[in-house]
Amino acid sequence: MIKVSRLRIFKTGGSVRKKVETKINWAQIKLLALDFDGTLTDGFVYTDQEGREFVRCSRRDSLGINALKRLGIIVVVISTETNSVVDVRCKKLGIESFSGISGERKLFVLARYMEKNRIGQIQVAYMGDDINDIGCLEFAGIAITVADGHELCKDYADYITKKTGGNHAVREVCDLILKDRGISN
Amino acid sequence: MIKVSRLRIFKTGGSVRKKVETKINWAQIKLLALDFDGTLTDGFVYTDQEGREFVRCSRRDSLGINALKRLGIIVVVISTETNSVVDVRCKKLGIESFSGISGERKLFVLARYMEKNRIGQIQVAYMGDDINDIGCLEFAGIAITVADGHELCKDYADYITKKTGGNHAVREVCDLILKDRGISN
Amino acid sequence: MIKVSRLRIFKTGGSVRKKVETKINWAQIKLLALDFDGTLTDGFVYTDQEGREFVRCSRRDSLGINALKRLGIIVVVISTETNSVVDVRCKKLGIESFSGISGERKLFVLARYMEKNRIGQIQVAYMGDDINDIGCLEFAGIAITVADGHELCKDYADYITKKTGGNHAVREVCDLILKDRGISN
Amino acid sequence: MIKVSRLRIFKTGGSVRKKVETKINWAQIKLLALDFDGTLTDGFVYTDQEGREFVRCSRRDSLGINALKRLGIIVVVISTETNSVVDVRCKKLGIESFSGISGERKLFVLARYMEKNRIGQIQVAYMGDDINDIGCLEFAGIAITVADGHELCKDYADYITKKTGGNHAVREVCDLILKDRGISN
Repeated sequence: MIKVSRLRIFKTGGSVRKKVETKINWAQIKLLALDFDGTLTDGFVYTDQEGREFVRCSRRDSLGINALKRLGIIVVVISTETNSVVDVRCKKLGIESFSGISGERKLFVLARYMEKNRIGQIQVAYMGDDINDIGCLEFAGIAITVADGHELCKDYADYITKKTGGNHAVREVCDLILKDRGISN
Repeated sequence: MIKVSRLRIFKTGGSVRKKVETKINWAQIKLLALDFDGTLTDGFVYTDQEGREFVRCSRRDSLGINALKRLGIIVVVISTETNSVVDVRCKKLGIESFSGISGERKLFVLARYMEKNRIGQIQVAYMGDDINDIGCLEFAGIAITVADGHELCKDYADYITKKTGGNHAVREVCDLILKDRGISN
Repeated sequence: MIKVSRLRIFKTGGSVRKKVETKINWAQIKLLALDFDGTLTDGFVYTDQEGREFVRCSRRDSLGINALKRLGIIVVVISTETNSVVDVRCKKLGIESFSGISGERKLFVLARYMEKNRIGQIQVAYMGDDINDIGCLEFAGIAITVADGHELCKDYADYITKKTGGNHAVREVCDLILKDRGISN
Repeated sequence: MIKVSRLRIFKTGGSVRKKVETKINWAQIKLLALDFDGTLTDGFVYTDQEGREFVRCSRRDSLGINALKRLGIIVVVISTETNSVVDVRCKKLGIESFSGISGERKLFVLARYMEKNRIGQIQVAYMGDDINDIGCLEFAGIAITVADGHELCKDYADYITKKTGGNHAVREVCDLILKDRGISN
């Protein structure tokens, strides 16, 4: 696996970030790896008196993920959370998921998945919102965090979505990838 | 079915859109066809570890739909979603629903429903928020999208609600229809 | 029952409304009658594929209602909704509820309750957010609606809460009543 | 137990509060005691027709609490609420909880817990959002309330979080404690 010299963005204001944005080569993406809580959800969990948990997901994100899949782009979830809601949700989305992965092991899981599927670093976009995503953010060809992501994630991000986590932020990324391939979605 | 030459709105700013708004003939509406997710809901789904799904709907929308029904206006839902929550919700609202309809087939379902009920194009308002609604938006006499609708939907919309999807946007439309008939609701 | 000549507020701006606010005699209130959906909730309902419904309530509202009850002020709910969630919630709050009451019958239920409990018009505050509350708003000594209430409700309101329905708006009213009695809550 | 002469903050504007903030000695904290509703949640409860209750919690708060625990800082919850959702949630967080504690008894529970665990007043941070937290806020070495906390809580607070209750406000406090120990989280 070749270590790419990736363009590092130093945030100096909205205008600069926008300028750099145009340089991201979304069209090269073959794998979109996603954190779950705070990325595909808003970072909240609804819990009842029996420990049952609900999370809130975006149907617009689902439409975007489906559009990527139709183009042969792989979408995968890597999450620290142990609750089976992660896997159940991903099953409905028709994407593979790795749950119960500690922050330290997230990058290991991502790297092994890439090797298995023969995907290079520059072909990978990783999207996460919290400190346990930093390893993957640093590694991926395109590092993405959400508008309400942790400050450290923003330091590593090539792209910060305009939308907050769970509020159609994944769809925003899907639309950028599709747009770079000339598909308006 | 006669193809109407419908007034196309080119968005050039809030003031222009407002001017055109006053030209929409809400009083002619006999059928209000609605998308479900993102229109009657906020576009989110709450999901638990067993795949059970909840959606959030507006009770104010319900009051508006009831008022339309009392005037003999038909309200119907056409949704891509396969989860039975769509039909269960519509049953409580006392309106007909078509769920599991792919984006490509939505217009077909709408057109057939109109033919069956002898409703012409100019008597139909369609309201949707995402790209799989564009066929119906282009076809309907009045095309409506929500404040947070997809940009492409906004391009096709005769009216963009001030409220976002699920946040009483349907009620806003109901009130406009009622107002044009001289009923303050 | 004596028809009171109640101070009618004509909204001409924030400053005027504030001036009138100070004239409301909150201390006279013996009965606080509340609408449910949109007043004790945010006007939304969470529904699943089996028709089960959840509503979102404020724990801060609960604390305020408890404080009123300790002072001997009666709190009661009058709702159009037929789902038993209304009665279940009110039972937990320890207050009486009348559910499944059509908009036309709400005032009748309120008036009968007042007669039974020997409560005069000027001793009643009614709080509601939608058109089916207007009869009660017009009748009650103090008419209250929420920041996001229907425009018609606002026309009848002596007081419009700063908070929106379900977002601690009832607590805001409780605190005003307590404050007028010299209790800081 | 020694009564500390704690720095009292008189709120005279954002700039002053910020100045005082820097004087809080977060590094001394050995116990972070938390209210539940409105602090670890947004102050709302989701209730269904059978009285079942859900609350919304932040997964980012969980990450922060875990980081504190790894440093040997004790996190504990003291709540008035009787519903078992409090204890179930705390069990998942791996922290001790005292639920069903009336507002008057909250300070008693806190003091006894401190005595048992040999924790002094200046080593305790208490975080709460409503009037039943005031006893504990007055007592704790560092009194914390949330951006949307009750005005009286704000009068007693040494620190008011930028975030509102349940919206990652606890994480904000965790990050401050970690930062003062030289750990970026």
